[in-house]
Amino acid sequence: MMYPAAVALGIRLRVLAGSTAESAARVVPEPVLGDCRDAAVLAAFAQLSDVLTVADAQVSVAALEKLEADGVVVRPSPAALAYVQDPSVAMRRRLTEFGEEVAGHEAGQGVARRRELAALVARSPSGQGAAWPVAERVRVAGTGDEVIAPAPGLDPALAARATEVALRIAGELGVVGVLAVELSEVVDPSTELDGTASVVVDDLAMRPHDAGRWTVDGAVTSQFEQHLRAVLDLPLGDPRPRAPWSVTVDVLGCDYPDLYRSYLHVMAHDPGVKVHLYGKDVSPGTVVGHVTVCGEDLDDVRARARHAADFIAGVIDK
Amino acid sequence: MMYPAAVALGIRLRVLAGSTAESAARVVPEPVLGDCRDAAVLAAFAQLSDVLTVADAQVSVAALEKLEADGVVVRPSPAALAYVQDPSVAMRRRLTEFGEEVAGHEAGQGVARRRELAALVARSPSGQGAAWPVAERVRVAGTGDEVIAPAPGLDPALAARATEVALRIAGELGVVGVLAVELSEVVDPSTELDGTASVVVDDLAMRPHDAGRWTVDGAVTSQFEQHLRAVLDLPLGDPRPRAPWSVTVDVLGCDYPDLYRSYLHVMAHDPGVKVHLYGKDVSPGTVVGHVTVCGEDLDDVRARARHAADFIAGVIDK
Repeated sequence: MMYPAAVALGIRLRVLAGSTAESAARVVPEPVLGDCRDAAVLAAFAQLSDVLTVADAQVSVAALEKLEADGVVVRPSPAALAYVQDPSVAMRRRLTEFGEEVAGHEAGQGVARRRELAALVARSPSGQGAAWPVAERVRVAGTGDEVIAPAPGLDPALAARATEVALRIAGELGVVGVLAVELSEVVDPSTELDGTASVVVDDLAMRPHDAGRWTVDGAVTSQFEQHLRAVLDLPLGDPRPRAPWSVTVDVLGCDYPDLYRSYLHVMAHDPGVKVHLYGKDVSPGTVVGHVTVCGEDLDDVRARARHAADFIAGVIDK
Repeated sequence: MMYPAAVALGIRLRVLAGSTAESAARVVPEPVLGDCRDAAVLAAFAQLSDVLTVADAQVSVAALEKLEADGVVVRPSPAALAYVQDPSVAMRRRLTEFGEEVAGHEAGQGVARRRELAALVARSPSGQGAAWPVAERVRVAGTGDEVIAPAPGLDPALAARATEVALRIAGELGVVGVLAVELSEVVDPSTELDGTASVVVDDLAMRPHDAGRWTVDGAVTSQFEQHLRAVLDLPLGDPRPRAPWSVTVDVLGCDYPDLYRSYLHVMAHDPGVKVHLYGKDVSPGTVVGHVTVCGEDLDDVRARARHAADFIAGVIDK
């Protein structure tokens, strides 16, 4: 999904992929095939480009540190990535150090979780930051997850607080590129009656994230373009939404390996749905794509996105 | 520019290109290299795909007719393409037959040209049609052309008439895919005082067109996605604009072969500009890319797009 942004910006993108079956290897010309966990493979690949960025959590931070010591530009840096790869220790200790509330940290205090939020930001090497509106993730058993941007009814002060937390983490950890901060909106029972809520950090990801796929159709600058701009030290783009509401729903693979018929139905039924398929082999339960709908009316946008995703996934009877 | 749409829709795109230096061959994996004017090359290439579509006016209609006779699905059809390739005879005769006013046809009647318009439509094999708002093309000596969508101040009745002309031509000629109809808004001196204007057809193109590049950032469905949907007989997408105004300006190559510095300036100066570079070698006067700006205020949108394009092109002193 980063490739279209690279093409438009005139940036040459090379990809290291495990096999030709991976989506990126199917889309980007001349993929280099190899195991990204193998330090020698990684070192040879790094020689082909000016900047190395990592989209796979399996890449060894130690191997990236060695490359960086040898002069390879790695963004985000291995030092920043270490916080993601070892969240139980380093990240939580560091986040606690600079005062964010971290999930688990306050365990036993009887805090009630309200909903899942995601604060998506980008940071460039020079420290420029950009933030998309805080989104909500809705998990739906037996069907695709939903991301709504902006999070409906979120208190503006709390949205500002979540964005501030994400930008602060990006700065403190020296993140370059997209940082997704997964948060919970929580209420303390002692303050529940007056509706006071706060946010706690659940997890971090230092790359374009599921919670930001809505930005491809719904924001002036997508998370993929922004990640490229940031890691290449280009000025960041405008993260503002193009429409009041954007909703993205995962499309799950169904029992019919050929999506073609349901895909035709969805296109005919709603010409405004943006369908994104990942070119993966279809199997039940796998996320094989997503749909995004943008518009003025939240209920309408949600219903359209849900119908399209569920229809392709076979959840709605054909 | 069609490739990102193909990737999102899960469509495999193969390209026949003259050399690896062509933009499409740089972007799409495994390009087939060969001369598209050579019937044997074209026949071999056609075997690789389910549908063949043509983006190069040099392809021989006779060669395409032979392929079609051999069972290759060619969209738009060679019969339709013939009207474009021989506009002086077949097109003008046929358009005259079904009553459109055609430029040249009324030469000598003292009609005054007001401005250039472009009516962009798409048509699927089943006859479904979709139309983007009529755009205006502004030619500026010594710098990049500008396309404004929708055409400012265009009488709604005249816009509807231009769209109707384009959809009618698409239907009458059996066009499948995107059809761009270049028109002139004209006034007859005898009716000039009362402001009565009409449109005459100047030219046709049966493929995604320069006048439709604004749709990539400015419409729910871009001309590239729509062309793919149409030629593959998928239901057409929503052509509505995402913003009140979209302006696209050509970026011309300048004396500095490295665009990098001016490109940085433009990104830093205006984070909302969408920059599209074509990956061509930069030489003075060549169109090497375009910029698009979308927004609420026409004067602001035009000024921003113009500044960005002129700065990259070196028209504004650095």
